[in-house]
Amino acid sequence: MHEKVQQAVSPAVERYTVTGLEQQDRDLVVHWGDGHTSRFNALWLRDNCSSGGDKLSAIRSFSLADVDPALSIADARLTSAGDIEIIWTPEAHQSTFSATWLRAHCYEPASRQARKRRPRRWNRAERQDNWPSVDFGDVRTSRAGHLALLETVADHGFALVNNVPATAEGTEELASYIAYIRETDFGRIFDIVSEPNVWDLSQSDQPLHPHTDDPYRYSPPGISMLHCLQASESEGGTSQIVDGFAVCEALRRQDPAAFDLLAATPMPFVRYREDPVPQGADVHLRAMAPIIKLDRDGEVCGFRFHERSIAPLDMAPEVMDSVYHALIKLATLVYSEEFMVNRHLAPGQAIVFDNQRVLHGRTGFEGLTQRRHLRICTTDRDQFHSRLRLLLSREGREGTHFEFPNGAV
Amino acid sequence: MHEKVQQAVSPAVERYTVTGLEQQDRDLVVHWGDGHTSRFNALWLRDNCSSGGDKLSAIRSFSLADVDPALSIADARLTSAGDIEIIWTPEAHQSTFSATWLRAHCYEPASRQARKRRPRRWNRAERQDNWPSVDFGDVRTSRAGHLALLETVADHGFALVNNVPATAEGTEELASYIAYIRETDFGRIFDIVSEPNVWDLSQSDQPLHPHTDDPYRYSPPGISMLHCLQASESEGGTSQIVDGFAVCEALRRQDPAAFDLLAATPMPFVRYREDPVPQGADVHLRAMAPIIKLDRDGEVCGFRFHERSIAPLDMAPEVMDSVYHALIKLATLVYSEEFMVNRHLAPGQAIVFDNQRVLHGRTGFEGLTQRRHLRICTTDRDQFHSRLRLLLSREGREGTHFEFPNGAV
Repeated sequence: MHEKVQQAVSPAVERYTVTGLEQQDRDLVVHWGDGHTSRFNALWLRDNCSSGGDKLSAIRSFSLADVDPALSIADARLTSAGDIEIIWTPEAHQSTFSATWLRAHCYEPASRQARKRRPRRWNRAERQDNWPSVDFGDVRTSRAGHLALLETVADHGFALVNNVPATAEGTEELASYIAYIRETDFGRIFDIVSEPNVWDLSQSDQPLHPHTDDPYRYSPPGISMLHCLQASESEGGTSQIVDGFAVCEALRRQDPAAFDLLAATPMPFVRYREDPVPQGADVHLRAMAPIIKLDRDGEVCGFRFHERSIAPLDMAPEVMDSVYHALIKLATLVYSEEFMVNRHLAPGQAIVFDNQRVLHGRTGFEGLTQRRHLRICTTDRDQFHSRLRLLLSREGREGTHFEFPNGAV
Repeated sequence: MHEKVQQAVSPAVERYTVTGLEQQDRDLVVHWGDGHTSRFNALWLRDNCSSGGDKLSAIRSFSLADVDPALSIADARLTSAGDIEIIWTPEAHQSTFSATWLRAHCYEPASRQARKRRPRRWNRAERQDNWPSVDFGDVRTSRAGHLALLETVADHGFALVNNVPATAEGTEELASYIAYIRETDFGRIFDIVSEPNVWDLSQSDQPLHPHTDDPYRYSPPGISMLHCLQASESEGGTSQIVDGFAVCEALRRQDPAAFDLLAATPMPFVRYREDPVPQGADVHLRAMAPIIKLDRDGEVCGFRFHERSIAPLDMAPEVMDSVYHALIKLATLVYSEEFMVNRHLAPGQAIVFDNQRVLHGRTGFEGLTQRRHLRICTTDRDQFHSRLRLLLSREGREGTHFEFPNGAV
């Protein structure tokens, strides 16, 4: 008999059906048809009463400064429509909550965990011959193709994009599918071409260890793209990428104390450049931030590491030796074969990557006799995740409430 | 006799004169002419050897991954020029450090504290009739005037700028003295004009509680400017500003537990907007970050608070009630007369402010019959501090090594 009832009611309906209400202390406890229980705080309920205005658009009149902290629930009942009505005391006010809205915003630990969209980590063995890739034609012509690009970058931290026009305009067009280009002292888009007089090592033909760009900014570049216009003809100039989150987890397993130290210790980063032009691109940027950024649950949500950009360390003398040993361990992992994935980009190919997670580097090449031309630009991660949420919603997919990793800030 | 020697040697020279060297464990202890002692870690010294390249430009070849962690100092001696020479073991390498460079990078606690440039906090009693202000003519025509604007904003969190052209171009020109304008879904520059159909409450004639802009971005706006083109003719539409850092310190004194909770608890912020235009300015932005951001010493270095932008709270059930009580305390302080400074901006006046510290709001006005026109735009804080460091250096002022508050990221 019980089984038959279960079959007749769809799981989605059960999930949003209130089967019981209880007042416990100043909280409201809600029992749901799928067996889940939620406890809602009285002030939380009052704050979220729709009479105060809309939290999404911020067109609201309600303010916590006007709330009596002694506010409590006088009565709570289930309406015939399945909504929950609350009568307040001492304030003469009544609130109605839809059961669906309440369940979607339940803040029990399991519900909060379920809203997290977790990265899929990778190493060389898993990814070298298995690059997640999309065709730029699909991105341009269909919402599903556009969503596929964004979702791939969000989950794997990078995507290979094929058939991007190998022109300067191609970089702009690719970026337009990600978010607003962020202008910095490198300009809106930076041309990586080997030159005789370099002010940035990327302009040389030297190999570059994998790194995240610009850790010396308070908020480093977010979703970046490396777009190939012309490849070097020799074996060199191969692009390398490394999953910083996978490296962090390896460090956490191999040396938990080193991991904890790098997550707890703000690291100083610096960038200085003179420019003869007044009001030009000269900079003296400094930022202090941990290499490993953890979220509230202790999960890695951001990474910033560019060994050449670390300023002379200025932390407490008693931790200096441990910090150096942790940095040596980390650098050794970052540069190891175990995590490094590489590809000789062809003209019209681009790598779109999360610069607060994935490191990029390259092998050396013969720059004096050969021209190699990549373009790089960057956009903000929050706008990228915003667009991903909107596309998920328009494609009828779940996930508009997803919490993505907050990044290295 | 001792006194005479003291008079003959200038304090600056003593400060950079090495009077003794000792090897202790694996560290090098340096005694200075002014009585200060520095302890330098062996790996720190090897990492900072100039043979590895330049840390400021990041044009370097040295990598910690190549260092033997057992590296130690075989011998250290003072040269006749007053420099320090180190011979390493087991690596066959020699390093030379200038005494001046070493002292400038000493990381003893007192030296690190001295490099911090601390904000000057204020409340209504101190600032209402005493606004730090600069004339835009001085900013345009002299480096000292430009520096005065930047230094005022860095120290006080805001500056009133007079005689900015009351035109659209005036906003662009003012921003050009700060840093690169950051484009968002509000555009490069946003016109605050009251309109009948608002999608943002700033477009209404409603009063706005003091807030920092856009806490729902991973990295909120940095140095922002409110530029007045046309004032409302009535009493209303008065701009209000509040020093968030002063509010935080008041909260810390009055309710340390509430302060600690708001510094430790990531707060969810949200912004949703539909735009009928495809690829338009529609957004669904979400970020999780504490309202109060502390630096490594527990000092407040950033603030993000916009009550209307707080998403339904989703922290652990057991802290929910305490978080609400802390939010009520904070909101009450932020909106109180004690901290609020106000001014009816005239056309051609602008407030430049640090949006990761100073809140802004306004009183209501009669928008249906009167036109009030402000423009707002924002730039990144790191570029702002970079330019400040460069100007200090060019004006022969100390401070290129200053550590400014890192902000709300």
